[in-house]
Amino acid sequence: MKNQTYRMTMLFDFYGELLTQRQREFFDLYYNEDLSLAEIAENEGISRQGVRDVIVRAEAAMQEIEDKTGIIRRFEAQRPHLDAIIAAAGEIKTINYRQFEDSRLTELADRILTETGALKD
Amino acid sequence: MKNQTYRMTMLFDFYGELLTQRQREFFDLYYNEDLSLAEIAENEGISRQGVRDVIVRAEAAMQEIEDKTGIIRRFEAQRPHLDAIIAAAGEIKTINYRQFEDSRLTELADRILTETGALKD
Repeated sequence: MKNQTYRMTMLFDFYGELLTQRQREFFDLYYNEDLSLAEIAENEGISRQGVRDVIVRAEAAMQEIEDKTGIIRRFEAQRPHLDAIIAAAGEIKTINYRQFEDSRLTELADRILTETGALKD
Repeated sequence: MKNQTYRMTMLFDFYGELLTQRQREFFDLYYNEDLSLAEIAENEGISRQGVRDVIVRAEAAMQEIEDKTGIIRRFEAQRPHLDAIIAAAGEIKTINYRQFEDSRLTELADRILTETGALKD
């Protein structure tokens, strides 16, 4: 399961609060705290398979929500637009640096880069 | 209920697919097709109150998801950043128009405006 950590972290970031407390706890320990199934099982006093079932059900529940809503897909579709804005602001800085040396243009392009950076987080 | 149409349309846009088919249908007729509760009731052969209950439950279900996840809040928090990018690109165009008349700068600023526009939709 851990080869899908990035996707799982995204799902958890968006939909984690829709899980049961137990699902959320096990999921967090496994993917974010990087405990093994066996370690979680020992801490909780249940079987490794029991832990696995809870996590697999949590994944399935979040994936089903994403399949229906496409919200993460929508967020990720923003990325190429943000990258294009960053590239264009960078080119403005380069042209200005080489040719005009206007501090207002530098400042405005930097502001665009900062604001775009805030959107990428 | 209809004084909250904007908020309801946002909720439906994000979370509508998580409703039951019946909730989705009534919600759509009421908020998007602008039918009255009485009209929906007559079409469906149920009471006006029955229609109202379905819609109110749909609203509550979606609002609960938003209260937990904050996804719409997150999307809306992007708006001031997008507005700042648009403002800065506009200023770059103005400075360039008045002083440098460089077609590359115009084109790059326009590209930033186009890409930002795509993110606002």
